[in-house]
Amino acid sequence: MPRKICFPITSRAYYGRSQLLIRKLHAHPGVDLKLMLGGSILLDKYSKHVADDIAAGGFEIEASLFNVIEGGNHVAMAKTACLTALEFTNSLFTAQPDVVVICGDRFEQLAIAMAAAYLNISIAHIEGGDVTGSIDESVRHAITKLAHLHFVTNEDAHRRVLAMGEDPRYVFNTGSLDVELAAHVSTTITSDQVNALGVGHDVDIDRQFLMVVQHPVTTDGHNRDHLETTFRVVAELGLPTIWFWPNPDAGTGEMSDMLRNMREQHPELTEHMRFITNVPASDFVALLAHASCLVGNSSAGVKECSYLGTPVVNIGNRQQGRLTGEHVIHTGYEAAEIAAAIATQLAHGRYAPSRIYFKDHASEAIANLLATTPLYTQKRFYE
Amino acid sequence: MPRKICFPITSRAYYGRSQLLIRKLHAHPGVDLKLMLGGSILLDKYSKHVADDIAAGGFEIEASLFNVIEGGNHVAMAKTACLTALEFTNSLFTAQPDVVVICGDRFEQLAIAMAAAYLNISIAHIEGGDVTGSIDESVRHAITKLAHLHFVTNEDAHRRVLAMGEDPRYVFNTGSLDVELAAHVSTTITSDQVNALGVGHDVDIDRQFLMVVQHPVTTDGHNRDHLETTFRVVAELGLPTIWFWPNPDAGTGEMSDMLRNMREQHPELTEHMRFITNVPASDFVALLAHASCLVGNSSAGVKECSYLGTPVVNIGNRQQGRLTGEHVIHTGYEAAEIAAAIATQLAHGRYAPSRIYFKDHASEAIANLLATTPLYTQKRFYE
Amino acid sequence: MPRKICFPITSRAYYGRSQLLIRKLHAHPGVDLKLMLGGSILLDKYSKHVADDIAAGGFEIEASLFNVIEGGNHVAMAKTACLTALEFTNSLFTAQPDVVVICGDRFEQLAIAMAAAYLNISIAHIEGGDVTGSIDESVRHAITKLAHLHFVTNEDAHRRVLAMGEDPRYVFNTGSLDVELAAHVSTTITSDQVNALGVGHDVDIDRQFLMVVQHPVTTDGHNRDHLETTFRVVAELGLPTIWFWPNPDAGTGEMSDMLRNMREQHPELTEHMRFITNVPASDFVALLAHASCLVGNSSAGVKECSYLGTPVVNIGNRQQGRLTGEHVIHTGYEAAEIAAAIATQLAHGRYAPSRIYFKDHASEAIANLLATTPLYTQKRFYE
Amino acid sequence: MPRKICFPITSRAYYGRSQLLIRKLHAHPGVDLKLMLGGSILLDKYSKHVADDIAAGGFEIEASLFNVIEGGNHVAMAKTACLTALEFTNSLFTAQPDVVVICGDRFEQLAIAMAAAYLNISIAHIEGGDVTGSIDESVRHAITKLAHLHFVTNEDAHRRVLAMGEDPRYVFNTGSLDVELAAHVSTTITSDQVNALGVGHDVDIDRQFLMVVQHPVTTDGHNRDHLETTFRVVAELGLPTIWFWPNPDAGTGEMSDMLRNMREQHPELTEHMRFITNVPASDFVALLAHASCLVGNSSAGVKECSYLGTPVVNIGNRQQGRLTGEHVIHTGYEAAEIAAAIATQLAHGRYAPSRIYFKDHASEAIANLLATTPLYTQKRFYE
Repeated sequence: MPRKICFPITSRAYYGRSQLLIRKLHAHPGVDLKLMLGGSILLDKYSKHVADDIAAGGFEIEASLFNVIEGGNHVAMAKTACLTALEFTNSLFTAQPDVVVICGDRFEQLAIAMAAAYLNISIAHIEGGDVTGSIDESVRHAITKLAHLHFVTNEDAHRRVLAMGEDPRYVFNTGSLDVELAAHVSTTITSDQVNALGVGHDVDIDRQFLMVVQHPVTTDGHNRDHLETTFRVVAELGLPTIWFWPNPDAGTGEMSDMLRNMREQHPELTEHMRFITNVPASDFVALLAHASCLVGNSSAGVKECSYLGTPVVNIGNRQQGRLTGEHVIHTGYEAAEIAAAIATQLAHGRYAPSRIYFKDHASEAIANLLATTPLYTQKRFYE
Repeated sequence: MPRKICFPITSRAYYGRSQLLIRKLHAHPGVDLKLMLGGSILLDKYSKHVADDIAAGGFEIEASLFNVIEGGNHVAMAKTACLTALEFTNSLFTAQPDVVVICGDRFEQLAIAMAAAYLNISIAHIEGGDVTGSIDESVRHAITKLAHLHFVTNEDAHRRVLAMGEDPRYVFNTGSLDVELAAHVSTTITSDQVNALGVGHDVDIDRQFLMVVQHPVTTDGHNRDHLETTFRVVAELGLPTIWFWPNPDAGTGEMSDMLRNMREQHPELTEHMRFITNVPASDFVALLAHASCLVGNSSAGVKECSYLGTPVVNIGNRQQGRLTGEHVIHTGYEAAEIAAAIATQLAHGRYAPSRIYFKDHASEAIANLLATTPLYTQKRFYE
Repeated sequence: MPRKICFPITSRAYYGRSQLLIRKLHAHPGVDLKLMLGGSILLDKYSKHVADDIAAGGFEIEASLFNVIEGGNHVAMAKTACLTALEFTNSLFTAQPDVVVICGDRFEQLAIAMAAAYLNISIAHIEGGDVTGSIDESVRHAITKLAHLHFVTNEDAHRRVLAMGEDPRYVFNTGSLDVELAAHVSTTITSDQVNALGVGHDVDIDRQFLMVVQHPVTTDGHNRDHLETTFRVVAELGLPTIWFWPNPDAGTGEMSDMLRNMREQHPELTEHMRFITNVPASDFVALLAHASCLVGNSSAGVKECSYLGTPVVNIGNRQQGRLTGEHVIHTGYEAAEIAAAIATQLAHGRYAPSRIYFKDHASEAIANLLATTPLYTQKRFYE
Repeated sequence: MPRKICFPITSRAYYGRSQLLIRKLHAHPGVDLKLMLGGSILLDKYSKHVADDIAAGGFEIEASLFNVIEGGNHVAMAKTACLTALEFTNSLFTAQPDVVVICGDRFEQLAIAMAAAYLNISIAHIEGGDVTGSIDESVRHAITKLAHLHFVTNEDAHRRVLAMGEDPRYVFNTGSLDVELAAHVSTTITSDQVNALGVGHDVDIDRQFLMVVQHPVTTDGHNRDHLETTFRVVAELGLPTIWFWPNPDAGTGEMSDMLRNMREQHPELTEHMRFITNVPASDFVALLAHASCLVGNSSAGVKECSYLGTPVVNIGNRQQGRLTGEHVIHTGYEAAEIAAAIATQLAHGRYAPSRIYFKDHASEAIANLLATTPLYTQKRFYE
């Protein structure tokens, strides 16, 4: 009997980065794959291509659960996690899977892991062991301590997961799915395609341009100020810039507000900028491959850009501690420091590709391990 | 301004073991203590003395939340945790404490820790780093990875919490609160007092007698069979025996059922036995101090009995991996093995007291550290 | 395409009284029946025969949801209703039935009706329009105002449902399913069968005996006192008596406590009494058919006993206002009044059967109407 | 001791229409008023003036609960109601009020009423007995059947509440709070003030202009089409028009989408239009007092406009069945019919004021009755 694997998808980004794995699992003769949808993936209007993919792929949807509580603040985030756990409990109990796959470090993924743990279901965790800032740092390691199978993306992470007492037989460095995708998709994209997305001014992507992706740090009370600093630095530079809207975590409201305000009240500052809410994962990679420099705090700067060789200015502590290649300059939140780093990166130009997060066939390796690794439920601190 | 500390109490046992600490915190000039009640402590009819203590102590109750979902199975346990987290989110958000104190490894405590983490509240964890069996093993370490201050009870635990990447400045080996209580309370108790409790036959505690405390292992499907084996071994011995009812975790229903069945259908097997649901923590310690041997899988066998020198036969993997003194014989679930271990312990008699879990003034040390250690919220894997 | 009908069953009693209808629906070619289980039916250990029936009947179970919150008080009752509604929302949304069938007046049934209403699903309500005491009175009429099809059991109820503005085309007096069952099952039962149930002393059911069924009145703070009065009156009479345990609504704890206390502390008062938690619906009817008098506040006294002709002493306001036949004497909570009424009923003996709640083929009529009545969702006050 | 009254406010509109009553209750010596905030009022960015009012008024906020589940569809609406009820249960249980005040017919208000009913708290209902379309119709009457005190706004409603079996001693026709507010606030407003709100083109409110307020009908699957019809009729007329954004009920997403689409894709059709999300209640009344015709399905067309004499074209069945003055022309969803009705109203001009929904001092009367009417909890169908 094929192994029944539940894969909860709670954000579009997760679907994007996991799509190779999901397809491999779906195609695997030893796996009966059930997708479970919840969180923001059911909500955002940009998820159309996700829905299309799912429909086209013939995937089975075991559950579609509306469980995002409005507010965009900490209490809404906490309650969303709790409600997610409550509802996934019912769905997991009904589905009785052999394994549930938890990805990364989003708050609702810990909640689902907790539910699965109490239900005695084996948990596989993708992308544990990294060190970053934000609440993600705690959440990621807490998931590790609930999980039974670990698919880490780099050597540092591997070492830490073992240090935390996980059994080496169940910890696998398979490389990053994001980076596999970055290596796999076409990086061809035209200015016309880009300028059909979002709002603002046209950007010629065949010339020098910046990309900015700065998300909220949920443990930080100064998200708005920090984003405004970045904004002013970038506005001053006067280079064509593609801004991506911040993720919908606690703190997103005030950040979006700042950007909206700038656009409406200070059109002169945004006349080189284009604002994009979301693009398909492949287009995002293509833009990274074209950008002269990525500015902000996205994990793509650390991971995808290591492989693509895109220069990165990583601001603040959201990625702090992650294994980073030489293509990244880390800065604090000071305007002068950020400006200097961008100048340095523009002067340097693209970097040689690195393989610190890359292994060939990551998704195939994970799919095979999920299908065949002997399962267990009783964990034991390994020492 | 005194530091506001929320102390969620979700079971009577937790209140029992934490009572010295709770009183120290309440009396501390630098602390504004708020108790939050939830889980089984609001439900069981034996909690009267807890309520009395709380009333007599003048404690402030910030919230009293009914959130136990009936069922006594995994799904009810998981949903209880989720509902607990949902409701504590509201209460913690309203209370806005500086610190929330999480004890041990019960499933609903992880849920509360998760809620607190998402609310950016500093988390103090008591009794992390131990290794045991059951789901408690995962839950305990996951709490460690969400917590900011760690009060461990022994050197092994200390080492493991550090290995997991916690910052040494915030990890304190303060000894066990249970053992401090065991060292602190009077161990005087009379047979009359004991025989006024529970149901069954009278036991003369001034002569040789056994105590049995065997709880469900939530990750195990054979709780009933295992308990029945213990029951048959103990019945065969024919010694006066005090049985404690199993904890209300998943699996408890079938275990209680087995005991009830034996009492009603096989009175001849239980004619030396007394069955007790619950006693105040101090009476429980006094009984441990008198018992010729403790049989089962209670943590009291490992901890309190190390200090009291009571011989222990520890069955199965619930405590497996915990630091144990020489007063413990570990066995599997085989009748012959259990019978032999009990015989050995009865022949040996009481052991010399050990201090592996004991430090003087544990509760005072924890209270002072909670009141004065500089707080932080952004965690970082320490290496 | 057959009409998809969801039938939520949230208590064993509901299953008992609805079993003829459920079988008719299951067998109906125009109906695709989905049972949904929740509430106490998943919890009580006496539900074995329900599970057996369901298994034997080949019914489809669309969902099994644990959603009873412990506490036995008002807040637990309210939260159970809310959680029930939350979880049934997911299940109903997934199932997308044409009709959901709501029975009677239990608190969680209103919650399910509310969920269904918000989901734009047509609601059929069985047993609306009656007048009783307790919170049931409000709940029943609130369900009526959410429901689209009404199956009432008597002329009084019919008149009231119309007065409340329901459209006469959708209000059907089909008689009572309980009474149809009472008319349908065998009333043969032996003392041996009875004395194999529950605990206490044997009762010879071929001689004079009393049955007592007194449930909590959830809007009343004196449930314990009222039950104790009944207990003392019945104890004084010294007749063989079969007591049924009270329903698990708010107030049940203190009532059960009183009974347990009497049994344990005053064995002399209970030496003619047998205490039974639960019996299959058919055995309950058989006992009613044998009892010399039913005492308490069960709706069976009003409904089933009208058809069976069993004398009834109905205490307090739980059934107040229901259409009652001449076989019922209504009393307040005074001992003297209750004693006098029992004496009168014993002197009178059995009554002639009445058809005020009875129509032949109630279940078949309802099943056909559920299968064929044109459905609508937009309600409109009819005047 | 003053009577403790809880007033749950779950939308800004509710606060607007209830503000006179809230102030009267706050000032009443016999009332201890506690506001409870939940639902959309905590979420929308236009609620600033509400927060200001609350702060300025010195009101006590008993609870602020985030409980809106995103989705804007039926399942999100149903789950929002359930979560609201769950959380208000805790807050009401803690507050232990004498009365909870439920307003109107919003879905989350029924949920709160259900929670209060199960907690045995007396419920006062404002604005029962009206007949309208949409799910509101069912919800309103279901609340009536749970409520103990009824404050209706007109004679038709009075008659229906009595027909539903409510006790005449507790049903009061106090007139409409909305209309009292409309009669009470200044109707002075300038074009400049209006054109500072929202987006789009300037409107000269001293000349002929239309107002459009068309909300989703939650029981209807054609909300988008219906709104588009209205849009095309209004666009064709070419008159200056102020559009209000639809309420955030199920169906709102597709309606907002249509409007947004028209604005962005067909600027030529919207060049006489201004789009406003929200205004303070007093400005809304002032606009009604100036508008040449109100088009759509807002209850303000029926109520406030009856007093103000503003011509109204009421589309579809959302208000169907309400007592309406001669100032309203009812239409279906056909373009021709709507266009003809608008033309008729523009030709007619303003109507004489009507008092069908108006009584002087409605808020004072309700406050006094809430403070002094003897309370009860056990309801009984009155006949």
